[in-house]
Amino acid sequence: MKFFSDNAAAVHPRLWQAMHAADAPDAGYDGDALSARMDDAFSDLFGTQCAALWVATGTAANCLALAAMVPPHGGVVCHREAHIEMDEGGAPGFYTHGAKLMLADGEGAKLTPEAIAALIDPIRNDVHQVQPHAISITQATEYGRVYTPEEVARIGSLAQGRGLGLHMDGARFANAVAHLGCHPAEVTAQAGVDVLTFGCVKNGGMNAEALVFFDMELADVVRYRRKRAGHLQSKGRYLAAQVLAMIENDLWLENAHAANAAAREIAGACGDRLFHPVEANELFVVLSPAEQDALRAQGFDFYDWTAPAGAPGAARFVTAWNSDPAHVSALARAIAAL
Amino acid sequence: MKFFSDNAAAVHPRLWQAMHAADAPDAGYDGDALSARMDDAFSDLFGTQCAALWVATGTAANCLALAAMVPPHGGVVCHREAHIEMDEGGAPGFYTHGAKLMLADGEGAKLTPEAIAALIDPIRNDVHQVQPHAISITQATEYGRVYTPEEVARIGSLAQGRGLGLHMDGARFANAVAHLGCHPAEVTAQAGVDVLTFGCVKNGGMNAEALVFFDMELADVVRYRRKRAGHLQSKGRYLAAQVLAMIENDLWLENAHAANAAAREIAGACGDRLFHPVEANELFVVLSPAEQDALRAQGFDFYDWTAPAGAPGAARFVTAWNSDPAHVSALARAIAAL
Amino acid sequence: MKFFSDNAAAVHPRLWQAMHAADAPDAGYDGDALSARMDDAFSDLFGTQCAALWVATGTAANCLALAAMVPPHGGVVCHREAHIEMDEGGAPGFYTHGAKLMLADGEGAKLTPEAIAALIDPIRNDVHQVQPHAISITQATEYGRVYTPEEVARIGSLAQGRGLGLHMDGARFANAVAHLGCHPAEVTAQAGVDVLTFGCVKNGGMNAEALVFFDMELADVVRYRRKRAGHLQSKGRYLAAQVLAMIENDLWLENAHAANAAAREIAGACGDRLFHPVEANELFVVLSPAEQDALRAQGFDFYDWTAPAGAPGAARFVTAWNSDPAHVSALARAIAAL
Amino acid sequence: MKFFSDNAAAVHPRLWQAMHAADAPDAGYDGDALSARMDDAFSDLFGTQCAALWVATGTAANCLALAAMVPPHGGVVCHREAHIEMDEGGAPGFYTHGAKLMLADGEGAKLTPEAIAALIDPIRNDVHQVQPHAISITQATEYGRVYTPEEVARIGSLAQGRGLGLHMDGARFANAVAHLGCHPAEVTAQAGVDVLTFGCVKNGGMNAEALVFFDMELADVVRYRRKRAGHLQSKGRYLAAQVLAMIENDLWLENAHAANAAAREIAGACGDRLFHPVEANELFVVLSPAEQDALRAQGFDFYDWTAPAGAPGAARFVTAWNSDPAHVSALARAIAAL
Repeated sequence: MKFFSDNAAAVHPRLWQAMHAADAPDAGYDGDALSARMDDAFSDLFGTQCAALWVATGTAANCLALAAMVPPHGGVVCHREAHIEMDEGGAPGFYTHGAKLMLADGEGAKLTPEAIAALIDPIRNDVHQVQPHAISITQATEYGRVYTPEEVARIGSLAQGRGLGLHMDGARFANAVAHLGCHPAEVTAQAGVDVLTFGCVKNGGMNAEALVFFDMELADVVRYRRKRAGHLQSKGRYLAAQVLAMIENDLWLENAHAANAAAREIAGACGDRLFHPVEANELFVVLSPAEQDALRAQGFDFYDWTAPAGAPGAARFVTAWNSDPAHVSALARAIAAL
Repeated sequence: MKFFSDNAAAVHPRLWQAMHAADAPDAGYDGDALSARMDDAFSDLFGTQCAALWVATGTAANCLALAAMVPPHGGVVCHREAHIEMDEGGAPGFYTHGAKLMLADGEGAKLTPEAIAALIDPIRNDVHQVQPHAISITQATEYGRVYTPEEVARIGSLAQGRGLGLHMDGARFANAVAHLGCHPAEVTAQAGVDVLTFGCVKNGGMNAEALVFFDMELADVVRYRRKRAGHLQSKGRYLAAQVLAMIENDLWLENAHAANAAAREIAGACGDRLFHPVEANELFVVLSPAEQDALRAQGFDFYDWTAPAGAPGAARFVTAWNSDPAHVSALARAIAAL
Repeated sequence: MKFFSDNAAAVHPRLWQAMHAADAPDAGYDGDALSARMDDAFSDLFGTQCAALWVATGTAANCLALAAMVPPHGGVVCHREAHIEMDEGGAPGFYTHGAKLMLADGEGAKLTPEAIAALIDPIRNDVHQVQPHAISITQATEYGRVYTPEEVARIGSLAQGRGLGLHMDGARFANAVAHLGCHPAEVTAQAGVDVLTFGCVKNGGMNAEALVFFDMELADVVRYRRKRAGHLQSKGRYLAAQVLAMIENDLWLENAHAANAAAREIAGACGDRLFHPVEANELFVVLSPAEQDALRAQGFDFYDWTAPAGAPGAARFVTAWNSDPAHVSALARAIAAL
Repeated sequence: MKFFSDNAAAVHPRLWQAMHAADAPDAGYDGDALSARMDDAFSDLFGTQCAALWVATGTAANCLALAAMVPPHGGVVCHREAHIEMDEGGAPGFYTHGAKLMLADGEGAKLTPEAIAALIDPIRNDVHQVQPHAISITQATEYGRVYTPEEVARIGSLAQGRGLGLHMDGARFANAVAHLGCHPAEVTAQAGVDVLTFGCVKNGGMNAEALVFFDMELADVVRYRRKRAGHLQSKGRYLAAQVLAMIENDLWLENAHAANAAAREIAGACGDRLFHPVEANELFVVLSPAEQDALRAQGFDFYDWTAPAGAPGAARFVTAWNSDPAHVSALARAIAAL
């Protein structure tokens, strides 16, 4: 009963079906009919003109976006615990040619305009200090926390006022939108986001994310950079197929609702053990080592996590689009019984 | 009846089957059982200890290999028409952080020790000139030409003598080995090759190539660099599944034999029109514009190509693992009838 | 009466003399007799075999050193307020091709083994997190604080134990050694330092620092990287002349003693206003805005500085090799009279 | 009697004088009065508004210029024998973050619009091939050849038509203008040049070149990049002093006329031995090994050179602003007497 992560779950049957359908011969790279449909499909989804490119991983998608917004001598503001800072093996430094990640603080790995301003206001406007050129936020965050449309809009407003680009790492964008129940444009295009990494892999995809450009000029540069990074697959139609299947008929929301619901069910059993509100599909739970052992002895797999100060230990549980309801209920019961 | 390229053909059924089997939950990234089998599987295939990593594209695989062998201030010798020079959108410059491609000449896009020496011998051994650190050759070449084991060994010997690494871009390695009928180690490990890009995508794969390291220390660096390039997929098991299915039961050779045979059948009809010997699955054919039109009118798709001096025009035809025998025969007949 | 910085002071007469003497024709780049003497001159100074290269600026020297020790996918541990992090315009990212600065804390901008371990111990040894490859410390620090030989040796020991390189940014190395009264090797070669940026510019030089390699293999790479960075001047003999004049007859120490003594004289008047002990030639002084105005009205120039919590304001004063004794005494009196 | 190169000659007395005058205290970096005068001084010289920055070396100046005009995924057209390709240790790859040098041919290391078009016209406008973003030409060329205003203007016109930037490497710009007898703007601003590396070091400077931006927006980026490359010297006033002394009272032309006249005197003795016309201060002379020995036995120093096909050997002689007239005449006589 695995609750390690959503990033290794099985591929959704409708994506398998779409990939098989893509087996028919078509042009290489992104010259095929499926890739050609992406711009329109995402423009429909967001209700605004945008450009969309498939990319195999979130790391590549995030970093291609940043590199399009930030010159090598510039910087990107992000949270100290952002995935781009903590878990991408230095990919931002590679893709941006050495631009700097500028680390701000904030509860639940969420940035606020105040925290951003506190970081960048003291930077002297001279050549000795790296100047910020963009902000990157994660929706939902690394702690499963969700920005409201208003919260994003406030950051978007600050970005616009300072001439900074705004990137959203949406590896779990679907979970965030499912939680908010809003239109996806409300937390992106309408809130000042220039580029969105629209995650599919954690939500039932195999190996395709989408980069969605509301600032469409950025897409032109990224087309070159994607190839230069070895991310322009010659059989790109299999990636386009995944992405299109994900957004057609709202499969992305359906899967996210399922994962979120599973997380909520477990959360209901956790009570005060939760040290982050459960808004998406991740649970951060205070558990003593003995309690962890007990759960593992019952067959539950999950990661140890850094406990809040004073707590005896902690663990992270992540649900997925296909979390087995029986496993989920079993876990909830097991935690309740601790 | 498409003869554009082998790089957009359908995925082989046995790879589909292997990918579906990989749907069962397993650890993320390359922590799964399939990824773990790759070293052994390739060591068996080559009859020598090696390390193997999956990578989604040949461009990324080639450039990760080069970056592991060449410091940013160094250079890589390659053919003037090599894929890394002509068709990878500057990826070598990106991955190597600005190292230089040093261009040598040679018939059929093949390098020779003599051509390499002619290029690098005049380089002064001082800091003003970029020093070569590696050689990259393509097997089969961009013109479908194949290096014999002896030819590779002569280059390997030069590389070793000069302290240079040796990389082989084997996007069509299977076609080359199928043509040679030799053991794959004879043109690689035994001939001094340090790293091989073992191509699968052009040979029936979806989006997985293998980087095979005979110099196993290089693999350790590439593990970090692969992640840093956003090429460590979280569901890597679907890539490992493709690669393993390709080499198990010699599917790679079976597919390559099919493609090569199709090319040979067409070649038989081309006579003096061929301006490169057909050793793999590519045909370079003198065709006047009128003749091209005639073939296209019969439903054959192919790329225009640069004609040899004096020729009225030319075209490139590429066969694939699944080229329809009826289409192949039809093309042969159509060319013969011109 | 300028106390802005030591980095814009006049050039010492003996350096002018040495540069004029270098006007005689000689070979270009570093092929001249003066450049050739540098290795021996520094080996004599440090009492151990080392290699020494001239470089025009401290920023370039620091970053060339780091790039020689750290691969693009690695990281460098430094203090959160280190010059390489705060004031080099992103040069480390440029020279290292995107390696990461990993920021540790410590009083007075000094690192400790404990602070370094607290930063790097939690880093998982996997490809998702950037791994440290070197440590960089500043002697004297950005707050004019000096590491004792024992303190450096403890860091050197940790570095060796972890397989990390150790770089010392010695922009004010002379001031530190003058303060310590030790042999320069005691805080460098004997304490585990691999490369030292030996500062001259802040100590009476015009535009030459020396990179001193106790790990001599690093120098071989840096010779190429220096050229590649456009820092191999064709009339390098004028830089060698500066550096050699600086270390011959202990001019470097003489100049540093003068600057340190001036700082001490002012410090004597500051009492509790000092919020960092004065060990080199920098003073960090609590001064209210009104007091700052009063000093400026008397003709003293200096930078505003960030005050400690609760203080009404602060300023930084820096003395130089040629600080006018009358100005120094006047400043001391003026502060005492506040 | 050294005729190796002009790049290691003594510093002109008026530059020494100007540097000494700069010893007076002033602000650091480029905040001093001399640095502040550079824009106006060059705007006066060229009779058009421009921005000018000092940089210590031609390599850094050239590469900062290119990096401002070319994105990392782009390319720069230059001559196959250009200094940036042959003798800068890979600096263009470093500064541009891996952009590509695209090599064109041309007699005497001169580019023509036809040669440039022949190179770039076949480039497919797709992401697989690196797209040109700028052209770099050298005035005078590596063979001492000079572009006329009309020749530059034709290249400038092509650049403008294709949307490419135009950089001029003017390491020996003074020698070229002295030869042409034209206004310096005629071969630069008026001919479509966006950025000029205005060489001083080979013309009597110590370690300062000027980057002159006719496209002034480029200068804003380069201010950041110069710092990031460790080329913003803290005592920049000594570099500004050199550059200003060079252009005031036409010292740059005076020095170049002297060097050119010396070269012409020697050229007069060379007759058919010359394999490049002598337009600036370099001579390329057919000399058999025995003749070279004979000259060296008489005390003349010079570099061997690659001889034209069929010639028994060759040498390069370079004159400088301070070539001793007696040595020059002696060399001319010695060659005539061979």
